[in-house]
Amino acid sequence: MTRADGHWVPSIEELSLARRRIRDHVHVTPIMTSGLIDDHVGSRVSLKCEHLQKAGAFKARGAHNAVFSMSEAEAASGVLTHSSGNHGAALALVARSRGVPAHIVMPSNAPTVKKSAVLGYGAAVTECEPTLMAREKAVDQLQRSTGGYVVHPYDDRAVICGQAGVGLELLEQLADDPPDAVVVPVGGGGLLSGVATAVKARLPGCKVYGAEPVGADDAKRSFDLGYVVPQTGPDTIADGLLTSLGQLTFPLIKRSVDDILLVGDSEIVDAMHLLYTRAKQVVEPSGAVTLAAVNTHRQVFDGLHVAVVLSGGNVDLAELPW
Amino acid sequence: MTRADGHWVPSIEELSLARRRIRDHVHVTPIMTSGLIDDHVGSRVSLKCEHLQKAGAFKARGAHNAVFSMSEAEAASGVLTHSSGNHGAALALVARSRGVPAHIVMPSNAPTVKKSAVLGYGAAVTECEPTLMAREKAVDQLQRSTGGYVVHPYDDRAVICGQAGVGLELLEQLADDPPDAVVVPVGGGGLLSGVATAVKARLPGCKVYGAEPVGADDAKRSFDLGYVVPQTGPDTIADGLLTSLGQLTFPLIKRSVDDILLVGDSEIVDAMHLLYTRAKQVVEPSGAVTLAAVNTHRQVFDGLHVAVVLSGGNVDLAELPW
Repeated sequence: MTRADGHWVPSIEELSLARRRIRDHVHVTPIMTSGLIDDHVGSRVSLKCEHLQKAGAFKARGAHNAVFSMSEAEAASGVLTHSSGNHGAALALVARSRGVPAHIVMPSNAPTVKKSAVLGYGAAVTECEPTLMAREKAVDQLQRSTGGYVVHPYDDRAVICGQAGVGLELLEQLADDPPDAVVVPVGGGGLLSGVATAVKARLPGCKVYGAEPVGADDAKRSFDLGYVVPQTGPDTIADGLLTSLGQLTFPLIKRSVDDILLVGDSEIVDAMHLLYTRAKQVVEPSGAVTLAAVNTHRQVFDGLHVAVVLSGGNVDLAELPW
Repeated sequence: MTRADGHWVPSIEELSLARRRIRDHVHVTPIMTSGLIDDHVGSRVSLKCEHLQKAGAFKARGAHNAVFSMSEAEAASGVLTHSSGNHGAALALVARSRGVPAHIVMPSNAPTVKKSAVLGYGAAVTECEPTLMAREKAVDQLQRSTGGYVVHPYDDRAVICGQAGVGLELLEQLADDPPDAVVVPVGGGGLLSGVATAVKARLPGCKVYGAEPVGADDAKRSFDLGYVVPQTGPDTIADGLLTSLGQLTFPLIKRSVDDILLVGDSEIVDAMHLLYTRAKQVVEPSGAVTLAAVNTHRQVFDGLHVAVVLSGGNVDLAELPW
């Protein structure tokens, strides 16, 4: 539905439809707990394990919803996108399962493991400079040459509705013990806008926070200023959170998110170490930013039950930060 | 029960009693699957995630059963053991929860992460040379000075019955899709003997294999020769599998295990890499030896449904082998 001010807000029916559409294609990811992590961070944490999603990240949800929403005619020319990694891998996976070609534009600084994953799913990779402008230009050129459908990594209605399933699912899993707060990583805002919309629709009293690296703090600045501040020259280990907010995601974030919490890279590394040693889970920096936020902003979460979205697990093992 | 030949074989009632005794103290660990791992190894693998057990390894089961089987009087003087790490940490954890002192003898080459865990649970650590003789001598001295109860890491009836719960639990979890084979790491044989006894009692047609590093192949040699060959001078990355079989574990292994499968260290590292990248799970070398065996001995497992026990996840992250 579109509100009076012209902004699109997905209804709970749209979100539920997306979930049903992709149900047979994506995993219901588990929730894990760890007493040692709770003791360490001072709150009660439920880890929503989207790093165990297909292709190793929540991106599989949005990509599936986008591609399986397309008509046969639309899908026939294939799909394309730009992505620092996880969305590209997810779209490549979905394209393969629908049997259509995929072209993925990746910045030259994307992790090797993420490039390999895209190639492994049979997609074509085009490299470009690591700026939003270069990425969009390369996609535009590819679109004109292939006639394919561009599935934006986050500023796309079907993608946002797909990602929202993370929020609906975790609330169902925690129905007997609802969270006081949900913490979600924010890069372009596809996951955060979807989850926040879903959580506020189902459990209005629950707080929703975005977690963002200090070195790519455009979402925090945009949130505080009330308009989209583009991300330029990001500098953070969280390679999945380098993008700017979108025209669709920002209004949803403004509407349903309580605050954006910043964390430094060393705090992200500490959170990764905690997840590897205590929960025995391989989580990428962009996925650990949420636990880092809970650990850093203790005054916000003290004694609460917090659902923490671990958004992805695609990390170069040869480049672990310790 | 004790058989006519004098060897002790735990009855299914003993195994079930142990499970009930420790039920409130240990986790039911999940089973995970990964299509990418299945494709890689050529069989259908169910990963039994004992690295997600309390204190990061299956050892919590046996230690809990041993300590909670003791009378108040027996427990009052405390407990002691020798351990390269996981059993020591588990015993320290249990001693703390029963409120009795624990003394742990550890070889000087035990991983730092395992020593830290033992100290973190409040136990006293005594270091010794990394030989079985030095370990047993140090325990003997401590026993005389403290009067405490020695909980052997594997050659103890209560410990074996506790570890057997891994087998009972995985068969229940896979009741709708029973495995054709179960693969278990073998060091001293506590886990293998318990799981093999449980599995053959409940599902006699299911094969049970031990998985062992080439550089510590005493169990394979013992199994083939029919008597216990001590392990001397082990050389493997799998630091939890350096011990010799015991007087209780060997007869049970002879009775219920179908074969011991050897794997090289590079195959163990490959299996760890596969688990970290595909299943996003942090597993220690001794825990990954089972997936390595499935991948290496493909002729044994081709097309079968194999339950693979990932026995522990306590690994020094600063010393990962890649």
